[in-house]
Amino acid sequence: MFFEGAEKKLEVVLSATSPSLFEKDRSFWEELVAKSKATILSELSGPNLKSFLLSESSLFVWKDRILMVTCGQTSLVDAVLFLLRELGKENVDCLFFQRKNEYRAQMQPTSFLDDVKLLREVVDGTAMRFGRLHSNHNLIFHSNKAYRPQVDDTTVEFLIYDLSEQASAFLTGSGLSKQEIRDFFALEKVLPGFEIDDFVFRPYGYSLNAVNDDDYYTIHVTPQQRSPYMSFETSLPITKAEQGILNHFLEILSPGAFDLMTFNCPTTFDFTHQDYIQVVHSKEKLSIGYDIHFRSFYKRQGQPEKPYQYLE
Amino acid sequence: MFFEGAEKKLEVVLSATSPSLFEKDRSFWEELVAKSKATILSELSGPNLKSFLLSESSLFVWKDRILMVTCGQTSLVDAVLFLLRELGKENVDCLFFQRKNEYRAQMQPTSFLDDVKLLREVVDGTAMRFGRLHSNHNLIFHSNKAYRPQVDDTTVEFLIYDLSEQASAFLTGSGLSKQEIRDFFALEKVLPGFEIDDFVFRPYGYSLNAVNDDDYYTIHVTPQQRSPYMSFETSLPITKAEQGILNHFLEILSPGAFDLMTFNCPTTFDFTHQDYIQVVHSKEKLSIGYDIHFRSFYKRQGQPEKPYQYLE
Repeated sequence: MFFEGAEKKLEVVLSATSPSLFEKDRSFWEELVAKSKATILSELSGPNLKSFLLSESSLFVWKDRILMVTCGQTSLVDAVLFLLRELGKENVDCLFFQRKNEYRAQMQPTSFLDDVKLLREVVDGTAMRFGRLHSNHNLIFHSNKAYRPQVDDTTVEFLIYDLSEQASAFLTGSGLSKQEIRDFFALEKVLPGFEIDDFVFRPYGYSLNAVNDDDYYTIHVTPQQRSPYMSFETSLPITKAEQGILNHFLEILSPGAFDLMTFNCPTTFDFTHQDYIQVVHSKEKLSIGYDIHFRSFYKRQGQPEKPYQYLE
Repeated sequence: MFFEGAEKKLEVVLSATSPSLFEKDRSFWEELVAKSKATILSELSGPNLKSFLLSESSLFVWKDRILMVTCGQTSLVDAVLFLLRELGKENVDCLFFQRKNEYRAQMQPTSFLDDVKLLREVVDGTAMRFGRLHSNHNLIFHSNKAYRPQVDDTTVEFLIYDLSEQASAFLTGSGLSKQEIRDFFALEKVLPGFEIDDFVFRPYGYSLNAVNDDDYYTIHVTPQQRSPYMSFETSLPITKAEQGILNHFLEILSPGAFDLMTFNCPTTFDFTHQDYIQVVHSKEKLSIGYDIHFRSFYKRQGQPEKPYQYLE
């Protein structure tokens, strides 16, 4: 069974004079999510941050900011175009649209460059690729309008490939409960203080949103043998002390490879792990104030592996 | 400018009782090549091996064997189906169909699994992937019919990514002649004794077939900045002494990464290079007698690189 775990992501920051996004009712978010061909599964509502768990990933809403992540065969660009129309592009101070390289790009409704063409009809922006086209990479389109991010506006994306056989075996087990998966990752221990909203897909797959005041983290697991993948993303700055969180996931999943992509998060630059070697490091300081680093790591060579056999 | 350098490849070995393929006239090979949506550019004819340089890569014909390689947006599977019809599938002792992961899979007319579905309507076979789905890999479909390869039936594929800026600058220079490119690679020095047929594409790109008795080597260069790639494939067994050829290409191109895929070529197993680290090694001994090794290497980390900027 194949499922496309690779994510698409949008981030929109509104101007200070825009009305609060908390004034929008649920039907607005339902419509937004439907534009990308996903649906809302559940919701957490805090005073500073609303979170929606989606049939394909996550939506987070602050009073002046939206973050939406979708995977599978969704068309996130249509959600971006909807937002620009509904909120008024003049009220958007900063727009990011991002796509990770897909496992099977030929199954996507559009390519990144198709999306960029549509976005450029509405927004003046820059498109770039971090990482190598032949291998893991992340594609970013951002608005060119002058902008200065808040000091605490950091993002860490931790993209984890080739989960170990043991981890995949557990995560594809039948009848797993939410609590069993939370316990497997020891989430409440390593990331205390967060309210959690999670969902176990059938036959397998797991999504989680967690919020704490205006911070979030989100986890999406695609454990199937053909494309074993997990993403962890957070607004936490992952300080030196918090690098233990990344090591914690590496210990549990013992993945064959991972990418670490950070936005304004210099405290992650010294992240290394004795079992992994960095093979790509692509970086850029954008004119709109974000310092982006993309780093790809592979496990130091162990035993040769068998090829994957396609039985259908 | 984007061009898909990633290759598709077919190999067909006929039974001993089949008529010699040298009895087929040029129109047969033209028709075969047209099936994949390529054309013949030029031809070399020896007593044991004919070679055709194609608008997208190469065709080699022995009396009892065909090897065809195409890149770009060709549909090589249609050439396989044509061969099975024209030669009679009962006369085919061994069939290989191979696809390297594409830089932009969404631009291909079919996926590997689409192709496998068509092939399985005609041939009982096995499909497998060497390497990781998220990164560089090679997909292989082979017939299951009992078969034992000749002792000297070896193949080495050397797939070279991210050519250095200097190499790309030279290879995208305007008005390059064939001889200038042959000299750049010092081909006549490191691989003496071969008759060469080559072609310089405009604005750039280079293809070469070389034959020596029943041995061949072939080179295809896609030097463009967005997807810089070169492949070198040969029937030479690349013994310990001949590993200098691989080092020679690494020295000239200083690539960011390369794959080394070998078929029945144990003398390449100890190939290492101080500037590169092996990150993936996938291997399988097929029931039909081929021992396949796929190894992926990355350059040991140098300076961080800038993202690639999409200007259109």
